[in-house]
Amino acid sequence: MAKEGADMTEETEYMIEQNVAKEAHNVESSGTGEAKEMRAVILSGFGGLNKLRVTKKTMPELQEGEVKIRVKACGLNFLDLMVRQGTIDNPPKPPIVPGFECSGIVESVGENTMGLEIGDRVMAFVNYNAWAEVVCTPVDFVYKMPDEMTFAEAAAFSLTFVAAYMMLFEVANLREGMSVLVHSAGGGVGQAVAQLCSTVPNVTVIGIASCSKHAAIRDSVTHLLDRNVDYMQEIKKISPEGVDIVLDCLCGENTGKGLSLLRPLGTYILYGASNMVTGETKSFFSFAKSWWQVEKVNPIKLYEENKVIAGFSLLNLLFKHGKCSLVKSVMDKLLCLYDQKKIKPVVDSLWALEEVKEAMQRIHDRGNIGKLILDVEKTPTPLMAGDSTETSEAGEEEEEPEGDNDSKERMPFIH
Amino acid sequence: MAKEGADMTEETEYMIEQNVAKEAHNVESSGTGEAKEMRAVILSGFGGLNKLRVTKKTMPELQEGEVKIRVKACGLNFLDLMVRQGTIDNPPKPPIVPGFECSGIVESVGENTMGLEIGDRVMAFVNYNAWAEVVCTPVDFVYKMPDEMTFAEAAAFSLTFVAAYMMLFEVANLREGMSVLVHSAGGGVGQAVAQLCSTVPNVTVIGIASCSKHAAIRDSVTHLLDRNVDYMQEIKKISPEGVDIVLDCLCGENTGKGLSLLRPLGTYILYGASNMVTGETKSFFSFAKSWWQVEKVNPIKLYEENKVIAGFSLLNLLFKHGKCSLVKSVMDKLLCLYDQKKIKPVVDSLWALEEVKEAMQRIHDRGNIGKLILDVEKTPTPLMAGDSTETSEAGEEEEEPEGDNDSKERMPFIH
Repeated sequence: MAKEGADMTEETEYMIEQNVAKEAHNVESSGTGEAKEMRAVILSGFGGLNKLRVTKKTMPELQEGEVKIRVKACGLNFLDLMVRQGTIDNPPKPPIVPGFECSGIVESVGENTMGLEIGDRVMAFVNYNAWAEVVCTPVDFVYKMPDEMTFAEAAAFSLTFVAAYMMLFEVANLREGMSVLVHSAGGGVGQAVAQLCSTVPNVTVIGIASCSKHAAIRDSVTHLLDRNVDYMQEIKKISPEGVDIVLDCLCGENTGKGLSLLRPLGTYILYGASNMVTGETKSFFSFAKSWWQVEKVNPIKLYEENKVIAGFSLLNLLFKHGKCSLVKSVMDKLLCLYDQKKIKPVVDSLWALEEVKEAMQRIHDRGNIGKLILDVEKTPTPLMAGDSTETSEAGEEEEEPEGDNDSKERMPFIH
Repeated sequence: MAKEGADMTEETEYMIEQNVAKEAHNVESSGTGEAKEMRAVILSGFGGLNKLRVTKKTMPELQEGEVKIRVKACGLNFLDLMVRQGTIDNPPKPPIVPGFECSGIVESVGENTMGLEIGDRVMAFVNYNAWAEVVCTPVDFVYKMPDEMTFAEAAAFSLTFVAAYMMLFEVANLREGMSVLVHSAGGGVGQAVAQLCSTVPNVTVIGIASCSKHAAIRDSVTHLLDRNVDYMQEIKKISPEGVDIVLDCLCGENTGKGLSLLRPLGTYILYGASNMVTGETKSFFSFAKSWWQVEKVNPIKLYEENKVIAGFSLLNLLFKHGKCSLVKSVMDKLLCLYDQKKIKPVVDSLWALEEVKEAMQRIHDRGNIGKLILDVEKTPTPLMAGDSTETSEAGEEEEEPEGDNDSKERMPFIH
């Protein structure tokens, strides 16, 4: 086990001790008697970027009904920032390996696991632990990839398109001639929403995004608005009667605005709360302020106005609410649309596991267009300064000023 | 004009004066030069049953785009009680003629009014003024009746079935295998919901109703629960994972309960607030109490639980939100189902216009199974005591004790 380098940190030591204890009776049946190791991103505690590092970790053991995947690429979502800060409901106790989705090759298949074979190219949802070289997850969360899809595309596909599809067609009921307002139109889900809307005739998509992204995403939506201007007035000009569907991943004051922009029988869907992330580390005050800024909704007002408000969390749906067969049927429909070349995941950039901090900073700064991908086989681009993965533990509880991160000096591989 | 009897009340005098002033330049072009009169139910002010009486009133004049209907039957809804008490949002100023739906025969057709002819048997929505011998309403709110439908059935059909259909299939998305919880299962909408659910395979309907109705409606639902017992526990036994759709016309504490009973991706729909009516007259305290008892909903909770909350008001949809073409398409689908004998309106009882107080008391006491109908051509059943229509003005502002109404001595014509 003691193969860590001399620069091993306290956390990795702690992790390894934990793993030794847990896996003593859990040795891989490789015949060597030695537990196999893998590289993984570890979150040692909730907080800033310095809580993340890459370390060696014992490989997970395959359980009945599970598939073991040799990971090629992982998706990085805004939710991973909230996990890092601990601003999610009921977070697991660190240290943990973050990450909820990946793509790769089936390495082995557990007992009573039907439908997949060793060597299959797959994409998968994982309840944490995705950001590693090897992942085990129940077969219900694993889907075969189309032959022409790359691993990076597959890691960019699952969460964004399943969430976008379910919101548009399962929660709301998108039909010909409707209008859709989507915040963060340049993000992974935003781009998936825009593509799925284009599969229905005569749908108007109003996207909100930072000005810096407008040139890149202008063609994906009908109307593009600047997130820093008064979008309410702009939307009332475009669609005086309001819009049919509002998709909001920001929360806060946008909830009240979103509801007021709905036309009768319209549906507002909250699918994230990225406004709760204001700085690099969790700030109690910003968190509490955002929470209370969420306007609570009086059902009688909904009655008088004929409006619908919904919440959508794909991860809760999968891992808490047991809706994996519904998600599977949605994935089948999406793969049909992919085969027909009606949809295609948008990959923003590829990053090595060791570059996870820089990748997170990019999504935090909302610099991405489409999805950020951790490419497990990628070699980190050399840093200008020392490798930030090995920064000290100092400042664990500090508030780090937003955007103040030296690791931004490393440039991503833009896809 | 002065054809009222010697027992004419102050209100009717007032009404007639109003009408004279208003209609001086509005005389019907009948050639006689005399404005035609009709019988109508008048609400003289908000309050108890004594605010209602039948009187003569000048017939409405046909406008462009409207249809004039010789009314045969009118629907009486719980909402009419709330109108009487003034417990609705932004009520019109009395005196008014209540009533939102009727059936009858087209008597004349305004300019630029397509699709209907004199003599057509029709059912119609009206923005107040339905409880009269003659009604004018825009052609968009008027639908031809099937030949085999009686006028009483037609007056029981429009509001209940359109509301039930739109909630199940437009707001929620009722599909095979789902479960539906409906409060007031014995009422007009409740019975329509049960029938529409039976048009979809394998739908479980859980109805809540007073015990006294159970024998009569047992066959219309899958499970029938007593509204006076702890229905939460019962429903958790029947459907441990919760239900897909909750339809609530009660509001108050049932909103929180309804939301907690939803399974993930389930939809709670509030379509009325009958709990706001506690006594015969409006009580400020009961009203305020009910309003504040409505649990306001935090959108982040909906996000975490993957739930949907909606409000549905058919009358606002029609008269405020301009959705009459959508409603027309729904009516077409419903008339198809009626032709196929898959649905049939349930008429509770028929009442003369002069019996409107007794009818209202019956719906207030939740004694009805299906819909109460005002039959314009029906002769009132003689009262045991004097005609309550002529009760004095005394007690206008009094709180009348619930159920203490001598006019209950008149028996309805049970259909």
